[in-house]
Amino acid sequence: MTLTYLTPLSLDQQIAHGVTPPQPLAVADRVRFSELDMLGHVNNTRYFEWFERTRVRYSQEWGISHYIKQADAPRIVIRSGAIHYRQEMLMDEDYIVTCRCAAFRTTSYSLHQQIWAGGSLRATFDCVLVLLERDRSGRLPIPTAVRTRFTEIDGAHPES
Amino acid sequence: MTLTYLTPLSLDQQIAHGVTPPQPLAVADRVRFSELDMLGHVNNTRYFEWFERTRVRYSQEWGISHYIKQADAPRIVIRSGAIHYRQEMLMDEDYIVTCRCAAFRTTSYSLHQQIWAGGSLRATFDCVLVLLERDRSGRLPIPTAVRTRFTEIDGAHPES
Amino acid sequence: MTLTYLTPLSLDQQIAHGVTPPQPLAVADRVRFSELDMLGHVNNTRYFEWFERTRVRYSQEWGISHYIKQADAPRIVIRSGAIHYRQEMLMDEDYIVTCRCAAFRTTSYSLHQQIWAGGSLRATFDCVLVLLERDRSGRLPIPTAVRTRFTEIDGAHPES
Amino acid sequence: MTLTYLTPLSLDQQIAHGVTPPQPLAVADRVRFSELDMLGHVNNTRYFEWFERTRVRYSQEWGISHYIKQADAPRIVIRSGAIHYRQEMLMDEDYIVTCRCAAFRTTSYSLHQQIWAGGSLRATFDCVLVLLERDRSGRLPIPTAVRTRFTEIDGAHPES
Repeated sequence: MTLTYLTPLSLDQQIAHGVTPPQPLAVADRVRFSELDMLGHVNNTRYFEWFERTRVRYSQEWGISHYIKQADAPRIVIRSGAIHYRQEMLMDEDYIVTCRCAAFRTTSYSLHQQIWAGGSLRATFDCVLVLLERDRSGRLPIPTAVRTRFTEIDGAHPES
Repeated sequence: MTLTYLTPLSLDQQIAHGVTPPQPLAVADRVRFSELDMLGHVNNTRYFEWFERTRVRYSQEWGISHYIKQADAPRIVIRSGAIHYRQEMLMDEDYIVTCRCAAFRTTSYSLHQQIWAGGSLRATFDCVLVLLERDRSGRLPIPTAVRTRFTEIDGAHPES
Repeated sequence: MTLTYLTPLSLDQQIAHGVTPPQPLAVADRVRFSELDMLGHVNNTRYFEWFERTRVRYSQEWGISHYIKQADAPRIVIRSGAIHYRQEMLMDEDYIVTCRCAAFRTTSYSLHQQIWAGGSLRATFDCVLVLLERDRSGRLPIPTAVRTRFTEIDGAHPES
Repeated sequence: MTLTYLTPLSLDQQIAHGVTPPQPLAVADRVRFSELDMLGHVNNTRYFEWFERTRVRYSQEWGISHYIKQADAPRIVIRSGAIHYRQEMLMDEDYIVTCRCAAFRTTSYSLHQQIWAGGSLRATFDCVLVLLERDRSGRLPIPTAVRTRFTEIDGAHPES
């Protein structure tokens, strides 16, 4: 099965390309020359751009934020994150970045992200995000429709 | 016609997505959130990564260099370039970057590159590249097969 | 003489560090590991971030724009640019980026920029910038105080 | 006291600029325009370049690796890391990035890094690094001189 880039992959496509188990959102991309460092592999710092790109897509698809300049759009702020590097990435490798909500509270939620290439897990990133008012005056509750999606699509559970 | 990302587009695909006239190499990608700057559009410096990505692909497809660490692979060095910005790029826009050899000499060649989005030309980049020995001890002639490709596919002519 | 980083260098400092002739604005920085590519030298695309950084500083020091979100601040748009690479840059090298207005018209101006390291010129960038209304509704004239500065400090002349 | 950029700060300089307690290595830099994203603050991914830059400097100063292409230089690989964002960073802010060894074993060590600006802690990064043979054939022990430095300068203790 040909890999489709920059478009959410179906569960079947994910399985065909080695993402096991498949995730709520998975998007493929390809290593750019400018992402390699002097050691000939993808620089550690570049993984964060890949995770961010898929996280932004996730926010759009799940209806959390469209990242357009709207006066009333919530501001998504990352509070913390933990990365694990498992295997280096090389020039021209195809990779798939995933995103899944692992847990959520009233105004914050945790995402679990993975990078897969050639059927092996290359890195994971777990992070905690908070919804703020556009002017940062206070926190915003996660909308009900998003909470429902976290539960029904991602299998995440609310924490108290 | 659906846009296929990160894969060389056929002439028909190029025409369907507004690249006129179609170019020898054209590859589609999509604006990343991390490429936007404070002004809400793609930062001027990011275009050069896009042009480079397609130039590297062109070098691979045309057989000039595979950008893998080989003792005998030629080193492609950019000597100069001229960019023209015509219209800004925004969040999530699909774009197509092209590459075509415009002229060549014994050890150097000129490429003409374009960025298209939504049927309009957003930027162009014209640059001059030189082939060097891996250890930079001297210049290397462009291989005959590449010269033939420059002429027959790109329609470029040798300059003296 | 010790090199002072990220602070405009005096004419004497510039001369002591090989910038000849000295320029209206010159700021020193140092190559970062993340700016090197697989070939072990600074990636071609990174030079544009260096030029931009000094150009932004120049805009602030010359009173053209302070790059803060003000409703009435002009928008500086780059229209075109020409880069010349003369000698590669390596890990940890100190470099000095300069900026000088070369010519100006009513609503546009040309800047000449250089990168120096170890007393040798590594790259130059010549670009044309335009002042626009914040909402891009039209062009803005260069303020008289800036025109005076272009002439008296940079030695630039108005073109018609 | 004037802030000196890109040069290891003395303990007195660190204290004068609000780094409390002072760290074994602390280096100042300044936010670049190209590091801001659409939200007008430094993009989350850019912090990792800042941490990396200081970590590379630390590796050089402590004698772990000089990051020059040597056949026998060890390869420093990052295995995992945890970031905490505490306060956003804005245009032109001066910041200080620190590095300290928190603990070490035979072939791996943990670093604690901080970003300070205007006397407040903006972010922290804790990571685990491993020393590998250049050809990745196996792990390398931390040299005795480096272990001594970890203990005597950083106050780190070996773990078993």
